[in-house]
Amino acid sequence: MGYLKFNITAKDGKARTAILKLKHGSIMTPELMPVATKATVKAISSEDLEDLGAQLLICNTYHLMLKPGADIIEKIGGLNKFMNWKKPILTDSGGFQAFSLGLALKHGTGKMYHPNKGEKLQSSKKSFVKITDKGIFFRSVYDNSPHLLTPEKSIEVQEKLGADLILALDECTSPMSDKSYVKKSIDRTHQWAIRCLKAHKTDQAIAGIIQGSSWKDLRKKSAKFICSLPFDSIAVGGSLGKTKLDMHNILDWIYPYLPEDKPRHFLGIGVVEDIFEGVERGMDLFDCVSPTRSARSGYAYVRPPLGNKMNKFRIKFTTANYKIDKRHLDPNCNCKTCKNYSLAYINHLYKSEEMLAHKLVSYHNIHFFLQLMEEIRTSIKKKGLKKLKRSWGL
Amino acid sequence: MGYLKFNITAKDGKARTAILKLKHGSIMTPELMPVATKATVKAISSEDLEDLGAQLLICNTYHLMLKPGADIIEKIGGLNKFMNWKKPILTDSGGFQAFSLGLALKHGTGKMYHPNKGEKLQSSKKSFVKITDKGIFFRSVYDNSPHLLTPEKSIEVQEKLGADLILALDECTSPMSDKSYVKKSIDRTHQWAIRCLKAHKTDQAIAGIIQGSSWKDLRKKSAKFICSLPFDSIAVGGSLGKTKLDMHNILDWIYPYLPEDKPRHFLGIGVVEDIFEGVERGMDLFDCVSPTRSARSGYAYVRPPLGNKMNKFRIKFTTANYKIDKRHLDPNCNCKTCKNYSLAYINHLYKSEEMLAHKLVSYHNIHFFLQLMEEIRTSIKKKGLKKLKRSWGL
Repeated sequence: MGYLKFNITAKDGKARTAILKLKHGSIMTPELMPVATKATVKAISSEDLEDLGAQLLICNTYHLMLKPGADIIEKIGGLNKFMNWKKPILTDSGGFQAFSLGLALKHGTGKMYHPNKGEKLQSSKKSFVKITDKGIFFRSVYDNSPHLLTPEKSIEVQEKLGADLILALDECTSPMSDKSYVKKSIDRTHQWAIRCLKAHKTDQAIAGIIQGSSWKDLRKKSAKFICSLPFDSIAVGGSLGKTKLDMHNILDWIYPYLPEDKPRHFLGIGVVEDIFEGVERGMDLFDCVSPTRSARSGYAYVRPPLGNKMNKFRIKFTTANYKIDKRHLDPNCNCKTCKNYSLAYINHLYKSEEMLAHKLVSYHNIHFFLQLMEEIRTSIKKKGLKKLKRSWGL
Repeated sequence: MGYLKFNITAKDGKARTAILKLKHGSIMTPELMPVATKATVKAISSEDLEDLGAQLLICNTYHLMLKPGADIIEKIGGLNKFMNWKKPILTDSGGFQAFSLGLALKHGTGKMYHPNKGEKLQSSKKSFVKITDKGIFFRSVYDNSPHLLTPEKSIEVQEKLGADLILALDECTSPMSDKSYVKKSIDRTHQWAIRCLKAHKTDQAIAGIIQGSSWKDLRKKSAKFICSLPFDSIAVGGSLGKTKLDMHNILDWIYPYLPEDKPRHFLGIGVVEDIFEGVERGMDLFDCVSPTRSARSGYAYVRPPLGNKMNKFRIKFTTANYKIDKRHLDPNCNCKTCKNYSLAYINHLYKSEEMLAHKLVSYHNIHFFLQLMEEIRTSIKKKGLKKLKRSWGL
């Protein structure tokens, strides 16, 4: 459909390394993409991202269509020009935010944060969202204005935003949705996939999304259907069940249907353990806000031996213990933050509500994940993924 | 007293260029120093400051003695190490903040912002401050804890912070204080100056501060007294009257007393017009929060022809006019922000409450002032300061 080339360069079990060529350049996979929700990775400039070696970013259609609006970004020349980012960009379809700011609130699940303030919204708040076969009706979190996001509208907006790789609109079901609802919902998602492909006119690559929650037959049905369509890339979305095992099962069930020669995006995944499990099950692309959101919540990612499964590879750098600590966030890290600043200084900046705290720790956390992904790629080339995983205590 | 060398390299009327040598290196004057209130120039990293060519910074004793505390910074190895800043640093005495967070609130003048939130404090709030010959009693804005800042204590704290150049404790009077009060106050400031010199033990350079509000005889008396003491540097502080003319008069009155071979610091000054007027009247050092505070308030500094006396060399980049504007903050600026980002993008970031807006515009605004100072230095070397000032429409 669009411009995308995917050449596998090495395999280790189901895991693979590849070169993914998109309009704005080639990237190496497996890779995690920092999330630039509103056309900025929070507190991080494009120069910083370049410096970090980030290979691609993902931006949120929901937020950008509302603010500043897709027409404005189109007039400026598209997202790459708008953000001054020269490498590839993905955009999501808007469906996930419509879910996470709508039904997820009703069900007390999902990411219940107001996009501006990082504050938890009241889960008692009325759902902003109504989903029909036509599309997703929602009210803007910015000004309560009404919007109808149809598959055609999502594609139109994403074409204006101009990313290298766009996503088809899907319905993201809640872990609380029952099977009969999800059964109907995947049929809707499949119809929307067809409508997205039909509406899609540019040379942007496009990915379809497998849904089906944690039911084996539904995940299989969705995988079979989505993978039969001429998408350039396949994504796995929606509820991944209640346990790690559910998540592993889902990836195992759909695996037989995934075309070998298309990249696979494990949507919204960014926990260290899940990245290893995803890569081991053939996933190529990951995206997660955790590097930047954790930083703003006072957590820094740390490698083994400081980091382990128990502490989720994070330290709470805001605790009083670190007030006079001359060491760095992670003695085993060589990022610019760790080379230049002490825990004591970062602790002070955070306690003093200084923006620089968020910048320095976000930078470190993104570096942590990009380095992890690089090590994963190297290990696959050496058929040593399992060994690497063990060295991380996983 | 301390380590400071000051070699004048050119003169143009009273204006001069010089090389000021301090413990952490040599800088060229006249220069404006960015303000790193709580050991960070807001939203700007030390690497950014290095990249901008900033030569020296000023940090606030008041804030740092309360948070994280001078002992902590001393244990980390001093401010330079704490901030990872290799060039010279100044610290103020704490007196100005005690004024601006105390008496200034009572009198409805000064900088009435809560240091954390940038919010205006109620001017009806009770003064946190009581000043006697002993020192300044105040309550912390952080936790209301009581503190007595004596001249000896200010020096002790500044020695722990470890800046290259420190300031003697003075009483900063309000523009609303009457002459009889200011008359007594300067005697107090002079006694404090002597006590500071006596308490001072390290090889840090130390500056005395001329006070006297806008009364000719008091300013002259204070200038004569402070300049007679063995300070390494002379600063001009306090109320500068109600009009620009008052300010010019004050500088003219004190000029005959200023030693030619000591640097002169015009405290808290950073408006373009005032910098020109100050340099013309022999001032060498300036400091002002306006580059970063303006950025956070939605203003970007612009050079002529876009900038002029009427708009105070600033544009309000947050106005709707700039929503689809592909141009840069200032088409005549070559800073990294202007090279890389459009007005439309910066407008979007600000409206979306993204931290990156503050970083990008603060960077630009600091660049604006550092470039202005460089042009001023060059013009003095060519005896062309008046010509440069005219080209700025001043």
